[in-house]
Amino acid sequence: MTDESDRAAAQSGDPHDPAAISRRRFLSTVGAGVGAAATIGGISGYALASEREATATAPISTTVPFFGPHQAGVTTPAQAHMAFVSFDVMPTADRGEVEALLATWTTAAAAMCAGEPVGTTDEGARLAPPEDTGEAVGLPAAALTVTFGMGPSLFTGELGRRLGLQDRRPGSLIDLPPFPGDVLDPRRSDGDLGIQVCAEDPQVVMHAVRNLVRIGRGTVLARWIQQGFIPATHDETPRNLMGFKDGTNNPDIASDAAMDAAVWVPQEERQAWMRGGTYLVFRRIRILVEFWDRTILDEQERTIGRHKGSGAPMGAAAEFDPLPLEAKDADGEPAIPIDAHVRLAAPAMNRGATMLRRGYSFADGLDPVTGEIDAGLLFLAFQQHPETQFVRVQNALAGVDALNEYIKHVGSAIFAVPGGIAPGASVGDALFA
Amino acid sequence: MTDESDRAAAQSGDPHDPAAISRRRFLSTVGAGVGAAATIGGISGYALASEREATATAPISTTVPFFGPHQAGVTTPAQAHMAFVSFDVMPTADRGEVEALLATWTTAAAAMCAGEPVGTTDEGARLAPPEDTGEAVGLPAAALTVTFGMGPSLFTGELGRRLGLQDRRPGSLIDLPPFPGDVLDPRRSDGDLGIQVCAEDPQVVMHAVRNLVRIGRGTVLARWIQQGFIPATHDETPRNLMGFKDGTNNPDIASDAAMDAAVWVPQEERQAWMRGGTYLVFRRIRILVEFWDRTILDEQERTIGRHKGSGAPMGAAAEFDPLPLEAKDADGEPAIPIDAHVRLAAPAMNRGATMLRRGYSFADGLDPVTGEIDAGLLFLAFQQHPETQFVRVQNALAGVDALNEYIKHVGSAIFAVPGGIAPGASVGDALFA
Repeated sequence: MTDESDRAAAQSGDPHDPAAISRRRFLSTVGAGVGAAATIGGISGYALASEREATATAPISTTVPFFGPHQAGVTTPAQAHMAFVSFDVMPTADRGEVEALLATWTTAAAAMCAGEPVGTTDEGARLAPPEDTGEAVGLPAAALTVTFGMGPSLFTGELGRRLGLQDRRPGSLIDLPPFPGDVLDPRRSDGDLGIQVCAEDPQVVMHAVRNLVRIGRGTVLARWIQQGFIPATHDETPRNLMGFKDGTNNPDIASDAAMDAAVWVPQEERQAWMRGGTYLVFRRIRILVEFWDRTILDEQERTIGRHKGSGAPMGAAAEFDPLPLEAKDADGEPAIPIDAHVRLAAPAMNRGATMLRRGYSFADGLDPVTGEIDAGLLFLAFQQHPETQFVRVQNALAGVDALNEYIKHVGSAIFAVPGGIAPGASVGDALFA
Repeated sequence: MTDESDRAAAQSGDPHDPAAISRRRFLSTVGAGVGAAATIGGISGYALASEREATATAPISTTVPFFGPHQAGVTTPAQAHMAFVSFDVMPTADRGEVEALLATWTTAAAAMCAGEPVGTTDEGARLAPPEDTGEAVGLPAAALTVTFGMGPSLFTGELGRRLGLQDRRPGSLIDLPPFPGDVLDPRRSDGDLGIQVCAEDPQVVMHAVRNLVRIGRGTVLARWIQQGFIPATHDETPRNLMGFKDGTNNPDIASDAAMDAAVWVPQEERQAWMRGGTYLVFRRIRILVEFWDRTILDEQERTIGRHKGSGAPMGAAAEFDPLPLEAKDADGEPAIPIDAHVRLAAPAMNRGATMLRRGYSFADGLDPVTGEIDAGLLFLAFQQHPETQFVRVQNALAGVDALNEYIKHVGSAIFAVPGGIAPGASVGDALFA
């Protein structure tokens, strides 16, 4: 058994020491030894989350409060590991079963996020299957977050009628339109329910995924599972598998105003269950890495519109400089080419459309058909109105983005992410109320 | 850019403080800020590796010496992330090309293990593809190891003749026999060359894999890539996806005598290129996790022969207690059932056969055929004589191990891992001499 308090003491440092506080790691959580953190997270985490106390901490011993005004895992600083599980409701499951599953999932997720096992791990109960699968025993919470979402198919057709949810579909939960260049695989797309699981430890992620799948047995069937990662060292903007920094232009997760403007569904929303919620657009974007790696640096940088080393926009000096969309180079051409990815995706080019991206890389071995590396980017973008955010930007990109030569969108899904969960409540309470 | 020295200072702690030294993490390396570690690793790493200086350190800032009397990545404490890449030599490649590739790979691996990019990352060279793919820029070495191996097919048939290696195949590099219950997928098995890449950061692993694949272009083709993980917190024996501690009975990597007895090929070996080397047996073992999770705890523990919580052998009290193979329970039955996995795999039951296992879990989404979770154990075992080590034990297990009800061997490979590499040399020098 790891001595967690020793580890925390050795790693956490003094929060008042400027050298111990990373410039960009302002967790809206408190990290401590597991026991202490679980208590703090469970009891006063709600308040702490809105106070946004800036505490530098060793991520592995961090507990992110599960309960709060919004679901965790959205404005939580991106953890190193992510798995997304999409589920279909079984043809036999009725409204009561789905409601009960959401309640059981909520209880299990809250326990796991506090670093506790699902159910009991009483070794005396030798004649029953263990309630927890056990592989996270002895591991810290590792900043685990579990974020629940509902797909459009939950509200429509036979399933919507069976669950009595036909009138609960929010207007913003659109069916994503087809985009030029899409080569979507239905086995990597869509789903009635979707859960994003993130943590600093891949085993903690896998433990949660597996227990959620196990609990769902008989009511839902896993439709697809997709894992992703960012560097273990991720205080700075992580690089994607094209070697470029990715996420520089994200809105500031520490700014309530920025999150209210772009991410959270306002209190005026007609569907009460979505107030304080958000929408997630998920895209599995294959990067043709072999092709990219044979491309000259000049073309790579003109494709992205940033310098590879520094992450600075072309025509600017530093990573966080604003995009100089009007600047010209020595030849009088736009410093950021007219078909560069960052130009076409910029809020200024899309009537202010801004999304909160939690980007992860994936690497899934070799493509069985082409024998090439099956790797790329998982685009997870949280937003309050997909029609005027993701769809608008993707329409701007899909036709003309220079990057399209090197990527393919092969999976796609959209989920409505309900608002925050109060202690004792279920993520499904407001939806089924 | 991350300030590595700040991070190292905040995390490494005082090596003379007992609380900062983990009981089981005695790295044969020195960790420090990246720059310093690279220098130490490159220049005096050889000596340090044999001195086995016990230094507790934040793994992410550790540099493992690439050069030394043995290849790194065998007795190196298992890092959190592993990827194995198997390659086939292309039908067009001749001896000179393969020899040159091994030399280029060696140079690249040495650089990456020192935390340096492959080649140069001169941003002035805008009209050439970057020599390094870039996604590890700014990341520490993260204890990266790259371990090279040669499969039986490199020495036989048309390829062996083409490369002039027919007389270089070591007697111990056998073709693995078929075992009862094997359901091997050729697309997850075998290979002319194999490389194990391990690091504490998945992005550092992927960066190395991708650059090795890229460098191999035109000479070799990737045959399969398999990624694995253990918990980010892995000072103690990690748990596998059955929830049990896995690796308790491993020989002590800090004991030269134990490693000489079980792992390293002795200096009397006829094939000079294998002296100081070892053999790797790789098995991709699918765990039927849904089935396992519905199994009662008593059956789980009787199947493995250990207690799930503590890891103690049945009939014993603590994880590292010797297996009480003769002990009886209250009913007079063997405390460790006669078909329990730990009994059948025990050295005492296999004429002393011991292997050094570096076990990793894998989780590759859903099985496209069954829709079940495609997860399990990557069994990587290093040994000096597969016939009397892996084959002997697997023959004992394959027919009768109670565990067989819950697992399936779906991939298999064997590689000869040459001896250590001296600075300036190539991993292929002795083989092609």
